[in-house]
Amino acid sequence: MRATVIHGPHDICIEEVPDPRIQHPADAVVRVVSACICGSDLWAYRGVASRVAGQRIGHEFLGVVEEVGSEVTGFTPGDFVVAPFVWSDGTCDYCRQGLQTSCPHGGFWGEVGSDGGQGEAVRVPYADGTLVELPRDAVTDEKLLPGLLALSDVMSTGHHAAISARVRPGATVAVVGDGAVGLCGVLAARRLGADRIIALGRHRSRTDIARSFGATDVVAERGEAATEAIREMTGGQGAHAVLEAVGTEESMRTAISLTRDGGAVGYVGVPHGGSAGVDIGQMFDRNITLAGGVAPARAYIPELLADVLAGVIDPAPVFDRTIDLDGVPDGYRAMDDRSALKVRITF
Amino acid sequence: MRATVIHGPHDICIEEVPDPRIQHPADAVVRVVSACICGSDLWAYRGVASRVAGQRIGHEFLGVVEEVGSEVTGFTPGDFVVAPFVWSDGTCDYCRQGLQTSCPHGGFWGEVGSDGGQGEAVRVPYADGTLVELPRDAVTDEKLLPGLLALSDVMSTGHHAAISARVRPGATVAVVGDGAVGLCGVLAARRLGADRIIALGRHRSRTDIARSFGATDVVAERGEAATEAIREMTGGQGAHAVLEAVGTEESMRTAISLTRDGGAVGYVGVPHGGSAGVDIGQMFDRNITLAGGVAPARAYIPELLADVLAGVIDPAPVFDRTIDLDGVPDGYRAMDDRSALKVRITF
Repeated sequence: MRATVIHGPHDICIEEVPDPRIQHPADAVVRVVSACICGSDLWAYRGVASRVAGQRIGHEFLGVVEEVGSEVTGFTPGDFVVAPFVWSDGTCDYCRQGLQTSCPHGGFWGEVGSDGGQGEAVRVPYADGTLVELPRDAVTDEKLLPGLLALSDVMSTGHHAAISARVRPGATVAVVGDGAVGLCGVLAARRLGADRIIALGRHRSRTDIARSFGATDVVAERGEAATEAIREMTGGQGAHAVLEAVGTEESMRTAISLTRDGGAVGYVGVPHGGSAGVDIGQMFDRNITLAGGVAPARAYIPELLADVLAGVIDPAPVFDRTIDLDGVPDGYRAMDDRSALKVRITF
Repeated sequence: MRATVIHGPHDICIEEVPDPRIQHPADAVVRVVSACICGSDLWAYRGVASRVAGQRIGHEFLGVVEEVGSEVTGFTPGDFVVAPFVWSDGTCDYCRQGLQTSCPHGGFWGEVGSDGGQGEAVRVPYADGTLVELPRDAVTDEKLLPGLLALSDVMSTGHHAAISARVRPGATVAVVGDGAVGLCGVLAARRLGADRIIALGRHRSRTDIARSFGATDVVAERGEAATEAIREMTGGQGAHAVLEAVGTEESMRTAISLTRDGGAVGYVGVPHGGSAGVDIGQMFDRNITLAGGVAPARAYIPELLADVLAGVIDPAPVFDRTIDLDGVPDGYRAMDDRSALKVRITF
């Protein structure tokens, strides 16, 4: 089969690789219907996150089950499924409590020895614990597919930021980061009943999506100027809940600064850099909570899926370009230079 | 009247100062019955936290109302009261939500222009918002007084750590810090229903108190060795809730490391040093929450007071030495060299 392979910074190729096959009785093989490129893939693309030359890449996909191992009981060939961005056994303490990202048998698509999502097929370990079934007729529903694909990571991650920041009905929420995760955070905050949602961003194409997702205000300023603007908008207090969807020291500093005393930052931007953006003295004096991390998408997909299918939320607008597998290297370039927000791959 | 005054590092004196008087209609003057020295006072004593020469000191006291301003409606002369370690107006958004430490009219006893708790009397701003009434007959109850005095700070702060760390019935809790706050954190965790409470400490006199407060295990190791020991005790997972009651980078690093994935650190140790102890990468991968800060003691005192009066909790054992006002300089020396755990002052 053909799959995306990363050889080094800015060196992404589509190559012929071995077909996936069942290696363990709990495995399934899924033929990919749609996948995408994530903002976090860019850390590898840019060489900030190191990869072994020849490693696969991509961790968001949905597809059709092609084959299952002898221990798989929840799926049969032909089932349409979405995969969260990590696999997990579904049976350990962590999986049972809904923190599948800490499963001791879990892993991340594309890690050495595993398939990546940006390829024609994927071997899925612990299929019963990992995959979530989708309606079979959705497989040809081009209107529905992008929203379902977003559950794999960005929508679930935006939701995790909102849950971690304790977004409640009536809350004032600020969202730091205008990428697909930040935008999905806006959508998640609206879904959780936030009264006011302030999106930080200056690119019209993105802030337009933020507004369509429920942002009531847009702040173009950054850093201290953004904090000042948001304090002024909130009677000097700041936002009850702040979603940090970037992962830099600067964005963390901004997120903490614009949180209302007693409020929480839900951080889901993969941290790059140290902890210098975490001002523990400021957090202490103002009782700011810092919560979040890698989103347990598997725990969130069922409830979010129900709302996507019901039309309550539709994260599809985060995808602004659709390509085929051969277009993937161009897709990375487009996301790297921010000419594309999020690129979807169809097979 | 006479009060404790700090002139510089290691320079604490008892001096004649002006008698407090009502300056604003919401003020009360309280004659101090009992006060104490706090571990956090040592930061000023050691010169780590700067003070203006001649500043008052001490932020924990209980006493009898001597005089009230014309706007005070909740107290009359003769009332026996305890003061939380900050004053607050009792009417603002933050006070009404129980975060009195963020009250815009609030302040900290001993700050420039205010009285400190380690003196014969104190002018209390916003008496109605600040003070909590105690049973009048408790004023002569030498058995009850120490436990009531602990509500002013250490017991409320230990409770804040436990609440912030999300201690729940059945939880495994670890407590970093064997000072009075850490020990009160043990007591708070037991009160909240923790199943297993692991106290970090190596001084027998302190770990004995920890055990009497409900610690089920004591770990003498520090740093990575403590983390390893606690992981081994918890099936490799760590503690659901970790109370950080020291405030150094090392203690924060330890607290985060020994938290179970998905768990929370409740931090109440006044941060000294930067954020280097906050390993944001580790927190991200394991979904660790960092919550806490300066404890809104005023919010907690009513419910904790009820349990002290009912004998459900008795934090009194954290006081291991009682002195009079003239003994205060010696009291600081004793706490500084750790020969005393917490020193109580009677008047």
